[in-house]
Amino acid sequence: MRIKAVVAYDGTNYGGFQRQTNALTIQGELESALERLTQGSVRVLASGRTDAGVHAEGQVIAFDTDWRHSVEDLCRGVNALLPEQIAVLELGIADDAFHPRYDALQRYYRYTVYQAAVRNPLVSRYSLHVAKELDVDAMCKASQALIGGHDFLAFGSPPQGNNSVREVSRADWLYEPPWLYFDIEANAFLYRMVRMLVGTLLRVGYGGLSPENFGDILYAQDRSRAGPAVAPQGLCLKSVVYS
Amino acid sequence: MRIKAVVAYDGTNYGGFQRQTNALTIQGELESALERLTQGSVRVLASGRTDAGVHAEGQVIAFDTDWRHSVEDLCRGVNALLPEQIAVLELGIADDAFHPRYDALQRYYRYTVYQAAVRNPLVSRYSLHVAKELDVDAMCKASQALIGGHDFLAFGSPPQGNNSVREVSRADWLYEPPWLYFDIEANAFLYRMVRMLVGTLLRVGYGGLSPENFGDILYAQDRSRAGPAVAPQGLCLKSVVYS
Repeated sequence: MRIKAVVAYDGTNYGGFQRQTNALTIQGELESALERLTQGSVRVLASGRTDAGVHAEGQVIAFDTDWRHSVEDLCRGVNALLPEQIAVLELGIADDAFHPRYDALQRYYRYTVYQAAVRNPLVSRYSLHVAKELDVDAMCKASQALIGGHDFLAFGSPPQGNNSVREVSRADWLYEPPWLYFDIEANAFLYRMVRMLVGTLLRVGYGGLSPENFGDILYAQDRSRAGPAVAPQGLCLKSVVYS
Repeated sequence: MRIKAVVAYDGTNYGGFQRQTNALTIQGELESALERLTQGSVRVLASGRTDAGVHAEGQVIAFDTDWRHSVEDLCRGVNALLPEQIAVLELGIADDAFHPRYDALQRYYRYTVYQAAVRNPLVSRYSLHVAKELDVDAMCKASQALIGGHDFLAFGSPPQGNNSVREVSRADWLYEPPWLYFDIEANAFLYRMVRMLVGTLLRVGYGGLSPENFGDILYAQDRSRAGPAVAPQGLCLKSVVYS
């Protein structure tokens, strides 16, 4: 049977979601724990890869297993075997055809900025520290250009041979000093897209780029004027929506 | 001249505040950074020791230096030399007689509990995970016994030869599901006192101890019925008050 599960992880010490031969990965840890528990070979599918150092509160995965006990036991058992940095929050039986990547309608990411004169050791694991003052109004204004269907080639790379048009349904900054959250929802994202967008929007906040310049970079697919990508620890995959 | 500073730290990877020969400590890191910067010997005094794994948002320290540049440069310089887990939030010149321990009027600690069926990797560094439901009303009721001057011998050890009477001005649980915060303010604390109190109050929350039993343990100084101390990562020294 096919199992669907919601997974949270602290990505700090991992080489990203996708299994690699030379680094610890979230997929590797999940597959190891599930294989030990179910005593069968397990291949984990996910809604998408997250990069090294990126966190998740709502990554969605699926896998096949011939587990004969309850789903509650499966959830408890895998959590007992997973390292502290990874947990299965919910788990249930899915349709045999369910695919967490192909069936996902929307992905929601949050990027967290901590704006204060001095860095704070208690938040540095999950945010980017910005010491300078930011023009939040300009950042909000620039972000509006993202809404709708656009070719996001300026801000990331599509998988080989695919197009780079994505449909953004939400892109806004929430300002609760000293916190600044960039919330973005889209049908899908290009590789590094959120971190490239935040890096470029912070340049708007610093005053080096106007909101209009930001729109121009997007419309012209001008990769040379975009970025740089901000650090991964501020990024979190919050949730994935299915029909 | 004497300098007073407010320091924040993530205590996870340290053997506590106080300098030791065989472990990394907050005091050791502060003294190393200050000695490198000021090129003189520096001895750091603090409002109190925090245990291994305990965090601080508002630890207060003092030290003497013949630094000839501005206090802003001193603050910036030490933050540049300190590891990411420690930061000086504020720094200024103090009275020569200022002592962060003897002059402190009040210390405020918060202990954070995360109450949810499944552990959450994104909060486990700064909270205690409790899977069971808790009777928060009973915990609040029990905590009221703490207010005022009491001999807290049941919940901790006083420094050698000293008495164990402390004056608690605030002790309450704030419940914002899934979060539960224990806020306690006192003129001073015994060794491990907050963690022993929280461990005993959680037993009230589980139903194994009534609020009246809790008061009895306090009044009878009955160490055999108190505790156990909860894990250090939920505890944070929030602030220290001076006149």
